[in-house]
Amino acid sequence: MKELPTITSLINSFGKLPGVGVKSAERMAYAILSFSKEDQEEFSKAILAAGNKIHHCPICGLYTEDDKCEICSDMNRDHTTICVVSEPKDAIAIEKMNAFHGVYHVLGGLISLSKGIGCDSLHIDSLLMRVKEDKVKEVILATNPTLDGETTAMYVAKLLEGKGVTVTRLGYGLPMGSSLDYADSLTLSKAFEGRKKI
Amino acid sequence: MKELPTITSLINSFGKLPGVGVKSAERMAYAILSFSKEDQEEFSKAILAAGNKIHHCPICGLYTEDDKCEICSDMNRDHTTICVVSEPKDAIAIEKMNAFHGVYHVLGGLISLSKGIGCDSLHIDSLLMRVKEDKVKEVILATNPTLDGETTAMYVAKLLEGKGVTVTRLGYGLPMGSSLDYADSLTLSKAFEGRKKI
Repeated sequence: MKELPTITSLINSFGKLPGVGVKSAERMAYAILSFSKEDQEEFSKAILAAGNKIHHCPICGLYTEDDKCEICSDMNRDHTTICVVSEPKDAIAIEKMNAFHGVYHVLGGLISLSKGIGCDSLHIDSLLMRVKEDKVKEVILATNPTLDGETTAMYVAKLLEGKGVTVTRLGYGLPMGSSLDYADSLTLSKAFEGRKKI
Repeated sequence: MKELPTITSLINSFGKLPGVGVKSAERMAYAILSFSKEDQEEFSKAILAAGNKIHHCPICGLYTEDDKCEICSDMNRDHTTICVVSEPKDAIAIEKMNAFHGVYHVLGGLISLSKGIGCDSLHIDSLLMRVKEDKVKEVILATNPTLDGETTAMYVAKLLEGKGVTVTRLGYGLPMGSSLDYADSLTLSKAFEGRKKI
């Protein structure tokens, strides 16, 4: 018996998700069959909506469904402190600790020598522009504490040298080699408190 | 910053899948944003199609997109040998070994004393009907080797007694490629009982 085409298609789609192998994708595909009609429709709609409604904020690069993201539009936040992250999900993790009141800048990746990703593909120019135009006082480099994250932080720090801005790096409360969005809020807030000038 | 409503909805949907916790659901939801437009549409469509197109075969209970499933429609298969499974995905696993040429019967669950699931909610009557009408020679009970699986197998075997049909149960023993010192003693004693002359 061949797998039904719809099931095959579901397995393929689930298999494209991070950390989902063939066996898990199969389990998930069959689980969809036992979802209620409403749950299936909601799931299906949410995936489409993700593609159609959500885009990057033109200022900071976070995800938004509006012209500007919630954080860039919020005048109560400190627009002279920019926290630089690799991906939008890192900003979500930082927001969860509820202790940072500045704004963000998403690089859209990390410089990676092993993967051949250079600085050109990252949103670094727009960061330099913001630092200049918005009279930014501090840039917090919150890239992952990995080789690529460190490299990127060092590179950005170098570019910001002599621009009259304080550049800091998250404190090493974070275990090396880990991933920022998996950190618990306490560890993350310790890392924020312990940030150091570089 | 609050999570975008679309993202929240995606996280909720992914969180309903088996073995997916909050953190994984979040990762998956954000991964959807980096899918290509085509991949998103295919995923969304497949979920809807799963609900609209796929239903249970009225004869055996396997999933199908047609009137009857591929196996029940296949006249080259041995319709006098029925393999009884708990869920359609078990049949898929058996099909993959490519050595069984009979047909299936899906019970739609297992009798479970702990979960309060009785024999009434399982498709046992239709099995007895098939055994009688299709002149079935052998019923292979391929429920899981767990407490619930055993209970169900014993119950079905009892009902089939004296109906002129051979009732068999899958062999127990060491899983292929496993390590003897990792096997639990129950499995090991079953393997000893089921030893064969070479």
